[in-house]
Amino acid sequence: MKKDLTETCLQSEQTHSGYLLKVFQDDVRLPNGQEAKREYIRHDGACVVIAELRPGVLVFERQYRYPVGCEMIELPAGKIDPGDTPLGCAQRELLEETGYQAAHWEHLGMMLPCIGYSSEKIDIFLARNLTPGEQKLDEGEFLEVFEMSLDEAEQAVLDGRITDAKTIVCLFWARRALG
Amino acid sequence: MKKDLTETCLQSEQTHSGYLLKVFQDDVRLPNGQEAKREYIRHDGACVVIAELRPGVLVFERQYRYPVGCEMIELPAGKIDPGDTPLGCAQRELLEETGYQAAHWEHLGMMLPCIGYSSEKIDIFLARNLTPGEQKLDEGEFLEVFEMSLDEAEQAVLDGRITDAKTIVCLFWARRALG
Repeated sequence: MKKDLTETCLQSEQTHSGYLLKVFQDDVRLPNGQEAKREYIRHDGACVVIAELRPGVLVFERQYRYPVGCEMIELPAGKIDPGDTPLGCAQRELLEETGYQAAHWEHLGMMLPCIGYSSEKIDIFLARNLTPGEQKLDEGEFLEVFEMSLDEAEQAVLDGRITDAKTIVCLFWARRALG
Repeated sequence: MKKDLTETCLQSEQTHSGYLLKVFQDDVRLPNGQEAKREYIRHDGACVVIAELRPGVLVFERQYRYPVGCEMIELPAGKIDPGDTPLGCAQRELLEETGYQAAHWEHLGMMLPCIGYSSEKIDIFLARNLTPGEQKLDEGEFLEVFEMSLDEAEQAVLDGRITDAKTIVCLFWARRALG
């Protein structure tokens, strides 16, 4: 029989409220009855889109990511706004960031990018039958859209050009979903 | 020619210093010359270990992760301590969490798990020729070690049992490195 490893919240305190990041520090009861502290970010969730432009060819973005100090190759993605559904978020982010709208949407699964210190959950969507249109970037958002085959993207992981974890997880899913 | 998308730091301020999380808010110069704010966590980095027990069979852990409120299936991983090398961290975490020591170590690549709001970088190591020993868990650390084949782990991603992003990224790498 599996051991119960659950940690139970005794008390929760918000210790930082930034314009983006909400940090909490909780006192928890450990499985052995002792107490410990857990510090983490509460996050409203996000979505990422595997947008298939033609058979085996996906829509990618090139974007500077300040926290890591470099340009990244990524799939379209964004944070869920309050009141938003994951699908609504996925459709909006694809349209705003790339200009594409999709006739076919499918929810493939989800991932947890940062289980050590964030509650963030990312829903993974497959978008097909794309129609091009105009980007509607947020103010202060700069990115370039380009296309790459799934084969080349997998090679780009192996040679270090793609290092974004959510994008690599989506390549795993895309290989199964697209065949 | 590609556009330069770089954002330049104008001023950096630490806005939260927890026992685990260090939050910074920087003023940055955008590619169009305007200013914006960027809030993010500075992280010392981490490592994750693909430990091959027998051909096609890996060492996994089951661990409760408080920020996401559930038990997770993961590969052995841990944070880099100050003064630690990534390889030193990988060797220590594998030993402490699972009791295994490895005669063969190989650095496969790295991933960035959370480019929107954390500087964290995770180095990916392959460990082979394992010798079992005794776990040396930190106080307040509870986890169970078990083995699973790469085939079953890939299936576990598709049916939602494995959702940890760093572990899924490692399965992508393991499929290429182990054949």
